[in-house]
Amino acid sequence: MKLAIIGYGNVGRALAKMLREKRKEFPFTITGIHTARHGTAVDPGGLPAKVIDAAELGPRAESVEEFLDAAGADVAVELTTLNPSTGEPAISHIRAAFARRMHVVTANKGPVAHAYADLRDEAACAGVGFRFESSVMDGAPVFNLWRHTMPGVKVQGFTGVLNSTSKVVIETMERGGSFEDGLAEARRMGITEGDGAYDVEGWDAAAKTAALANVLMDARTTPQQVSAKGITRLTPERMAEMRTQGKTVRLVSRGRRTASGVSLRVRAEVLDRGDLLAATPGTSNLILFHTDLMGTFGTVSIEPGVEQTAYGVFSDLVSLRG
Amino acid sequence: MKLAIIGYGNVGRALAKMLREKRKEFPFTITGIHTARHGTAVDPGGLPAKVIDAAELGPRAESVEEFLDAAGADVAVELTTLNPSTGEPAISHIRAAFARRMHVVTANKGPVAHAYADLRDEAACAGVGFRFESSVMDGAPVFNLWRHTMPGVKVQGFTGVLNSTSKVVIETMERGGSFEDGLAEARRMGITEGDGAYDVEGWDAAAKTAALANVLMDARTTPQQVSAKGITRLTPERMAEMRTQGKTVRLVSRGRRTASGVSLRVRAEVLDRGDLLAATPGTSNLILFHTDLMGTFGTVSIEPGVEQTAYGVFSDLVSLRG
Repeated sequence: MKLAIIGYGNVGRALAKMLREKRKEFPFTITGIHTARHGTAVDPGGLPAKVIDAAELGPRAESVEEFLDAAGADVAVELTTLNPSTGEPAISHIRAAFARRMHVVTANKGPVAHAYADLRDEAACAGVGFRFESSVMDGAPVFNLWRHTMPGVKVQGFTGVLNSTSKVVIETMERGGSFEDGLAEARRMGITEGDGAYDVEGWDAAAKTAALANVLMDARTTPQQVSAKGITRLTPERMAEMRTQGKTVRLVSRGRRTASGVSLRVRAEVLDRGDLLAATPGTSNLILFHTDLMGTFGTVSIEPGVEQTAYGVFSDLVSLRG
Repeated sequence: MKLAIIGYGNVGRALAKMLREKRKEFPFTITGIHTARHGTAVDPGGLPAKVIDAAELGPRAESVEEFLDAAGADVAVELTTLNPSTGEPAISHIRAAFARRMHVVTANKGPVAHAYADLRDEAACAGVGFRFESSVMDGAPVFNLWRHTMPGVKVQGFTGVLNSTSKVVIETMERGGSFEDGLAEARRMGITEGDGAYDVEGWDAAAKTAALANVLMDARTTPQQVSAKGITRLTPERMAEMRTQGKTVRLVSRGRRTASGVSLRVRAEVLDRGDLLAATPGTSNLILFHTDLMGTFGTVSIEPGVEQTAYGVFSDLVSLRG
């Protein structure tokens, strides 16, 4: 399978490294790389390793459409930076690929959070696949788990601890630092969206909540429709007080079916320190699925990094290959 | 697909109920039920609902072989009570099914813990499937997760909290009860193997450890080769003391690859109350997989019951149907 990669930052480079290491067992060929800032490279016969490794790209293609036409790939791998309030430009890139009968794999949660049902149906009309395992919880099995292993089970709801920045801020305050110290630490770790306001105000969690609900519960919602409050009212004094009571706080996403549809919310919840939802240190995260046949079970991911995001994309590519 | 069920206790009945509820989407037919104590019923055209629901069986077949020959099924569903030190009689039942070119689904961990590599190879020779999702962590995705969703990933090791009885005993002692009170409580809950000694001495955890290592790491081991110590030296006094220090104990299974093969052990580990491994109340359980491409991630199951064990068998049946 030939791949055209749109956006080539840390995840793209980690993916390229993984593809090279696994090329004997899983032969994929990168025929194009396109970035907004660093230019474009295309070779329908496969880009040379040097171009891929050093990201030595040529002049930038006029548009994503022109890039996709030139790359002659089977799959568009969408890894651009997200505008979280709209899901663009990723949604337009995905549609450009569908229009060319290309499969799409994206690590962006935006398209899934904002436009999942439409994109799913457009992919079906075009006879191509649309995969997004890394959009929530990196490469840990969430969407592919439901795609491949839970026949006959209906998701009634979910509970998730999905935002890392808020946890780093909370843990910093528990150690006596300020809210701003925590945000600075999260920025240093490279885990914030933009300046981190998006994270601590609950919007990152809301986007993941909408994405989960759209895919697993056919909610046809958007992040704006999720009732979201962040952790911005927490103070070091309040965290210290909770600590003496054996409690902590997590930004928790909750979804459940109701008579009228699906209810979705994000809240800073006070939890016992021994609660499973609290036992997610650092960038670790957790989703519990509430189901009919299988009760409550879930997936946990421990301190994932960029390699784990890349693995989610890799597993999607293998899944498309069938 | 036609099913011949060997052993018809709580799991078998929960499975039969699930099969009936899902029959439109997943059409399976039960053509035989065989039990050691309550007799046998066979109808190659499908047993009547009354026989299945009320377990009103007829005279007992002379042998499992005779039963399988009469039932004319495609799949043998092995749900008998286990002799945990040998994996029998389940292993013999499975071989009898393979000899008749029948697929096998079992909820027994014994065959997987004692004889996995042989049974896997025998199934391949017979051209049939061998599935056992419920043998560790009931129906939560463990083996099917690896079978269907983690392409190219190698398991380097695992960490699990897999025995429920030991947790009930520990929690009882933390509340001021005695070790025996805890065991009695676990027996009341119906979660012990036999009288519970097998659980608190670590053998149940050792069997699950061996099963995981055999399937995920090709360890070709047995429970007897797992270095196992249980929780029998814990006292209410010691648990109370730990509690004041914010600590608790879990019976933890650990597997890791070494230069010479696979190292497997079960120990009562002292953990901070906020540790993820400690955050598994009641009968909840957890496995973390340590991998090359996907770092550490895992599956958690919250207070599973007999329906969740039945679901694991159900998902195996659907997986065999393909």
